[in-house]
Amino acid sequence: MFNKVLVANRGEIAVRIIRACKELGIPTVAIYNEVESTARHVKLADEAYMIGTDPLDTYLNKQRIINLALEVGADAIHPGYGFLAENAEFAKMCEEAGITFIGPHWKVIELMGDKARSKEVMKKAGVPVVPGSDGVLKSLEEAKALAREIGYPVLLKATAGGGGRGIRICRNEEELVKNYEQASREAEKAFGRGDLLLEKFIENPKHIEYQVLGDKHGNVIHLGERDCSIQRRNQKLVEIAPSLILTPEKREYYGNIVTKAAKEIGYYNAGTMEFIADQEGNLYFIEMNTRIQVEHPVSEMVTGIDIVKWQIKIAAGEPLTIKQEDVKFNGYAIECRINAEDPKKNFAPSTGVIERYYVPGGFGIRVEHAAARGFEVTPYYDSMIAKLITWAPTWDEAVERMRAVLETYEITGVKTTIPLLINIMKEKDFKAGKFTTKYLEEHPEVFEYEEHKDKEDFAALISAAIAAYHGL
Amino acid sequence: MFNKVLVANRGEIAVRIIRACKELGIPTVAIYNEVESTARHVKLADEAYMIGTDPLDTYLNKQRIINLALEVGADAIHPGYGFLAENAEFAKMCEEAGITFIGPHWKVIELMGDKARSKEVMKKAGVPVVPGSDGVLKSLEEAKALAREIGYPVLLKATAGGGGRGIRICRNEEELVKNYEQASREAEKAFGRGDLLLEKFIENPKHIEYQVLGDKHGNVIHLGERDCSIQRRNQKLVEIAPSLILTPEKREYYGNIVTKAAKEIGYYNAGTMEFIADQEGNLYFIEMNTRIQVEHPVSEMVTGIDIVKWQIKIAAGEPLTIKQEDVKFNGYAIECRINAEDPKKNFAPSTGVIERYYVPGGFGIRVEHAAARGFEVTPYYDSMIAKLITWAPTWDEAVERMRAVLETYEITGVKTTIPLLINIMKEKDFKAGKFTTKYLEEHPEVFEYEEHKDKEDFAALISAAIAAYHGL
Repeated sequence: MFNKVLVANRGEIAVRIIRACKELGIPTVAIYNEVESTARHVKLADEAYMIGTDPLDTYLNKQRIINLALEVGADAIHPGYGFLAENAEFAKMCEEAGITFIGPHWKVIELMGDKARSKEVMKKAGVPVVPGSDGVLKSLEEAKALAREIGYPVLLKATAGGGGRGIRICRNEEELVKNYEQASREAEKAFGRGDLLLEKFIENPKHIEYQVLGDKHGNVIHLGERDCSIQRRNQKLVEIAPSLILTPEKREYYGNIVTKAAKEIGYYNAGTMEFIADQEGNLYFIEMNTRIQVEHPVSEMVTGIDIVKWQIKIAAGEPLTIKQEDVKFNGYAIECRINAEDPKKNFAPSTGVIERYYVPGGFGIRVEHAAARGFEVTPYYDSMIAKLITWAPTWDEAVERMRAVLETYEITGVKTTIPLLINIMKEKDFKAGKFTTKYLEEHPEVFEYEEHKDKEDFAALISAAIAAYHGL
Repeated sequence: MFNKVLVANRGEIAVRIIRACKELGIPTVAIYNEVESTARHVKLADEAYMIGTDPLDTYLNKQRIINLALEVGADAIHPGYGFLAENAEFAKMCEEAGITFIGPHWKVIELMGDKARSKEVMKKAGVPVVPGSDGVLKSLEEAKALAREIGYPVLLKATAGGGGRGIRICRNEEELVKNYEQASREAEKAFGRGDLLLEKFIENPKHIEYQVLGDKHGNVIHLGERDCSIQRRNQKLVEIAPSLILTPEKREYYGNIVTKAAKEIGYYNAGTMEFIADQEGNLYFIEMNTRIQVEHPVSEMVTGIDIVKWQIKIAAGEPLTIKQEDVKFNGYAIECRINAEDPKKNFAPSTGVIERYYVPGGFGIRVEHAAARGFEVTPYYDSMIAKLITWAPTWDEAVERMRAVLETYEITGVKTTIPLLINIMKEKDFKAGKFTTKYLEEHPEVFEYEEHKDKEDFAALISAAIAAYHGL
């Protein structure tokens, strides 16, 4: 096992990693900058070093982090998520410095980081991708033949487009014929190239992802799937496990596919294969994330398996002792992201000092956070201040528990996603499991709530300010 | 379901009950007194009424509580544990006032409250009790015959004795003969009566208890057992589920016995049958607690069943939908009681205002508490300020998790049991599952720790004082 692990991250995930190390009896090293000297991850680690003044550079400064690890005798670095977690160059630098990067091999990070190549590799490994043309369409006749084969509706996409521009939905051959010429001409005009692609249009898609866990001895298992369809600005807001659309047979079917593919690319570490899913539960590969995900707790809650501890053990060379048939799915878990932002203002970040902070505890309730009273939410980092996870034997109970806990979660001083999340938990489509990536657009009523009355409580302000200053 | 539930308790159990009601969608009513006007249960309940100035009388004033329930339209009262939870008279008063007492019928409370009668009833129902004489011994010959039958060692007890006085251990017939005359004479002298009882002496006993759950339709299930051997001054300090000494076969064997007995006395509500156990895992009934127990969370963690929610549903007349064969035991759970007391001073209570308070969250971690920064620990109530529970798939991991979490749990301003508990989690006999009710006496080394350095942090003091005053 490692002598010492440097945690190259901050916030809740740094706290999560430090706790996993503590359970394994491994000393930890935290890094921070001037802005975060009183942060929880700094307090919890056995050693902590201020390695920067620039709030962002701190966690991105590859060479300085590696130098520090060498200086303090840390033989492994856990990158968490974000920052350097999927930086193949950093992983390579670690290897060259003789430090274990807690993640997959850098060549795998590189391969999966190239979205076009990763799709090809996965397709070859038998993972379903959205059916469509292999590259640029040569003629309308080819488009017609292909559309007939994969079935309508289909999308015509300008290869040079992006951000939704140059995309047309064709629901039948007539529309395809009409759109083909128009789209080509428009693309020519707008982007200088008229090249078109065709692919199946997945209506009302869900975002489904599989959690895999592979070791350095060629063993790979999957921990089932998560449904992360409820998103705001393409960022996940509510995640659940298991999904409500996969039958046990389909779970096993796709599970076999993802474990086989992960084996083929020599994957070790925790990893996630992301899919777009149609309403029938057919999955199409989008990309693979070669790191721990924000939403990993829901998979832990339903399988009982500690993914972060396994990341560390795997990196240290330990073989996976869990076989696929030992993985049992028990109950339902929901994760809500408590973000310091204003849902009513298009989720604009809300900064400030947290005045009151009460975290509910209890049965089936899990909180992952680094926040506390006096914690300052700065504009420098991600707006997520906590993750609230509930578990229950049934979906209905997990939802009721989440609602009840959100109602008692107290954060003042910044605006948060809590009132929006409460409304989602009460909304009938969500409760019925009927939600797609368009959920928030289609349910404007969940944005209707009374603003939390931030009492102009002078005592609370002073008290929080003193606490913030002293890092209490 | 009920229209409104009045919670006739305080502290963590009041918070626990309010949360269960919230999940079930039932409005709640809290009661409090001058001392506790800023307490968490007061904040969390939908309504709260100050019904007293005397800190103790508040939660014991039967008539005032019932009157309040009638006034505010609460059709049920949950008594929690302690206070009125096992007060048959109160349960009867509720019945007469047309309010549902969330507990068993008052006649059952009364029966189980009489320790001698409850033992007789349980014995008749097939529950094993410590073997011994049926009443007073008539002669030495009778004592000898009986001892031969039940096996040595045996105890000779003066019927008029108490608190360990007038008790002699006899390891063979020679000792029995010698002790019989002496004990009889001494008892005559000390208590005025020479009457003796004889019973089997259980060496190095464990405290094992079974959780049962019965409804008003005659269905009873058990949720397995807990080992609560680690006690201080006859009060539980660490509780685990399942015990490490019962095999699955023994678990089922005694489980069948306790459910059958509970059915025979017409038991409904959650209940606990307490046993003394020898090292071979033989159980002998001591008493039955007809209420929720402090340590119920460990059973919830390993079975996934919410006991408090079931108490409420059962009281409302709902049938148990869980069958015995549906109860699966998954992993291990440990509960540590975080008390405001000084273990080094024979667990003397430690009062004061909590200055810093940090509760760790995370996978397999559960906290049940009403404490917070600024919370005042008063001399009026039980010294328990929080319960920390960990769960993991294996015993070893559950212990390591508990140690890691205790090490990051931050409470300043009062002395707590945390440093003692950390030492217990590190101690080899505990880790090996070798502990009896004599554990603390036999392991004085767990009391050796550095006092937590309460920094004389003026800012923390002021900040906490302001918070306490304003109930932030």
